[in-house]
Amino acid sequence: MHALRAIPGACSLADLDTAGTPGFVGSKSDALRLLQARGKHLHTLQEKLYANAVSGNGRSVLLVLQGMDAAGKGGIIRHVLGMVNPEGIDHAPFGVPSSEERLHHFLWRVHKALPRLGHIGVFDRSHYEDVLVARVRKLVPEAVWQGRYHEINEFERQLAGQGMVIVKVAMFISLQEQKQRLLQRLRDPHKNWKYSPRDVDDRLQWPHYRDAYQALLDRTSTEVAPWYVIPCDHKWYSRIAVAELLIAALETMDLTWPPAQYDLQKEITRLQRS
Amino acid sequence: MHALRAIPGACSLADLDTAGTPGFVGSKSDALRLLQARGKHLHTLQEKLYANAVSGNGRSVLLVLQGMDAAGKGGIIRHVLGMVNPEGIDHAPFGVPSSEERLHHFLWRVHKALPRLGHIGVFDRSHYEDVLVARVRKLVPEAVWQGRYHEINEFERQLAGQGMVIVKVAMFISLQEQKQRLLQRLRDPHKNWKYSPRDVDDRLQWPHYRDAYQALLDRTSTEVAPWYVIPCDHKWYSRIAVAELLIAALETMDLTWPPAQYDLQKEITRLQRS
Repeated sequence: MHALRAIPGACSLADLDTAGTPGFVGSKSDALRLLQARGKHLHTLQEKLYANAVSGNGRSVLLVLQGMDAAGKGGIIRHVLGMVNPEGIDHAPFGVPSSEERLHHFLWRVHKALPRLGHIGVFDRSHYEDVLVARVRKLVPEAVWQGRYHEINEFERQLAGQGMVIVKVAMFISLQEQKQRLLQRLRDPHKNWKYSPRDVDDRLQWPHYRDAYQALLDRTSTEVAPWYVIPCDHKWYSRIAVAELLIAALETMDLTWPPAQYDLQKEITRLQRS
Repeated sequence: MHALRAIPGACSLADLDTAGTPGFVGSKSDALRLLQARGKHLHTLQEKLYANAVSGNGRSVLLVLQGMDAAGKGGIIRHVLGMVNPEGIDHAPFGVPSSEERLHHFLWRVHKALPRLGHIGVFDRSHYEDVLVARVRKLVPEAVWQGRYHEINEFERQLAGQGMVIVKVAMFISLQEQKQRLLQRLRDPHKNWKYSPRDVDDRLQWPHYRDAYQALLDRTSTEVAPWYVIPCDHKWYSRIAVAELLIAALETMDLTWPPAQYDLQKEITRLQRS
């Protein structure tokens, strides 16, 4: 299957069918079954990544999750990354910056949160907040956020040059679907903590956010760090789509099991005698 | 079930049956079925811990995994912690200290690796290496490692005083079982990377390590941070035992779903109108 790779200037969010399942032919139960099987493959690929890092060939994968509130970022982490060994995941949430973080360049906290070698890093929101909420809420002057697109591309180019494989996922749902999901958080006492009044504030600003997302897709989908647009009204679709993107990313790395860094026969003998 | 809580001076490693399954009556398949069910409960408890932290009641749990090579620490992480949302796990492996870490007090790197609030921290090895390998390999003078038992107890007392719940697990297998597991790592090319010649070096020093473990159990099993001794010849037993210990720890915290931090009715109205 192929999720929608954002081609700068050619991907219109206004036309996106958030209930679509591009590249996937099958039912929800087909998708759930496939996800189980593909999860095992993903698990093995990550273990190879880790084994290589232990053996001196250190690389990592960075999954950037951006999207509307309630689009399902948490579900991706739980249901897709949850199939991988927790040893191999570096989870980094990006909330409202602290007072110290605000004094630094916006990439300061991002650098510190990059995945360790051998790991899949998961950014739950990311440096892209600095051209989304910062732009819509006018947290910085326009000249500042305008400059950030170039800074981000340069930053990601450096990471990729060091061997990091970057997968960027933009997750969208319809406003109607978002309303239902947020209502559920308000109606279920077990989910109240997931809701913030900011969610409705942002919802009311959606046209401005959509413009900001459109600019992000047009200006930061690069060869080394492309964006993929994921329609998320169907959670089962978004999960299998992200799993496949991660698998494809890991497969481009041509990972093999690293050979022993010691004399195999000698160690077998030593062990037998011990 | 009740795993073996180490009572200072009363738990003899020399007498431990590493093939035992203390407190568990049932077969391997009973244990695997139970683990699935208990995993869901563990998942919910961790989510409550996280929800409380988001809502201003920030606490955390620290699981310390210590034990012989190949005792199954990795399996615990994969099969027990793998049942919890990866968002809620802070995994910290403690390998050979870096040159910078060696210059610092031994707790320096430990402080930095403590779990974030709302998280279950998992120490894969820990500060206890500094009274195990440091003692057996004579990496520091005796007066130094002798002083560390007190320093560790004081450190953990401070953490517990801040609200952290500490679960310490010491994992043991028979020397025969260890030999089989290490041989498997040498015979399976997919597992060669998990083996290190140090594993046999340490094996040959087992009597000294056992003494060091005995001292650790006798001197650092405290009221606020007790040790649990887990016989690990049966992986299925060790996994359900650790799952139960984590569940028991979380249950002592009496976690409830936090109430909304906002006006619920007002937000439902705002959302409906948006």
